[in-house]
Amino acid sequence: MQQRLSLVTLGVQDLPRSLQFYRDGLGWQPSSASQEEVAFFQLGGMVLSLYSRASLAEDATVDPAGMGFSGITLAYNTRSRDEVDAVLQLIEQLGERIVKPAQDVFWGGYSGYFADPDGHLWEVAWNPFWTIDDAGQVLLPS
Amino acid sequence: MQQRLSLVTLGVQDLPRSLQFYRDGLGWQPSSASQEEVAFFQLGGMVLSLYSRASLAEDATVDPAGMGFSGITLAYNTRSRDEVDAVLQLIEQLGERIVKPAQDVFWGGYSGYFADPDGHLWEVAWNPFWTIDDAGQVLLPS
Repeated sequence: MQQRLSLVTLGVQDLPRSLQFYRDGLGWQPSSASQEEVAFFQLGGMVLSLYSRASLAEDATVDPAGMGFSGITLAYNTRSRDEVDAVLQLIEQLGERIVKPAQDVFWGGYSGYFADPDGHLWEVAWNPFWTIDDAGQVLLPS
Repeated sequence: MQQRLSLVTLGVQDLPRSLQFYRDGLGWQPSSASQEEVAFFQLGGMVLSLYSRASLAEDATVDPAGMGFSGITLAYNTRSRDEVDAVLQLIEQLGERIVKPAQDVFWGGYSGYFADPDGHLWEVAWNPFWTIDDAGQVLLPS
């Protein structure tokens, strides 16, 4: 199994509502491979997918019931400290929920969290020890 | 907000146990940026992180309680149908749980699901309509 990840799928209650956030709000462009019931966004070399939460559970053959903390977070790393504030301001303007206002954190960075329309948690973080290349890739030392 | 994802963090109950799976089982190489309480894996241009579930909830300032379906799945796309079987065989040999045996699926591909030691769901999928480049990137039409 190669060291890679192809796709992250976020289960959503209402795809048009989620598209309003990711496409219209954040300005992300869905791939033309998207269909009526699923949206795909190219994120670097991988894909973010939005799909009905119930259908996703059905596809995985698991019980769709679930509540509370999902145990998974996504992170968007910025190139500067100010950019964390800018992103969280955008989220607030879009009417989404700031879960943790941006603040200095114990590992030496500056970060906050927001929730997408389905409560999926995104951290927005400036990590002064990590670099982001021109293509937006985060490249760690091997 | 650029169209990219920097990091996916999986909350884990027992980091050594998770490392046993991802590092020793799958053969993935942790970055030297990893520390005692957090492991980082470079996956293409982004990073997978393993971190205590309780600490992750604390970092996000959310209640750590949660149960059932997380509403998020990860997917590993293969270059062939046979490779799906091979990956799921490896998972079985490692003693992890096959959630859905590999099978033909409605969208024209072949896929199955497994759960990692914390129940995080991974789909292993062959999608004949998507290509994976030499670097392992999934590139969709814009």
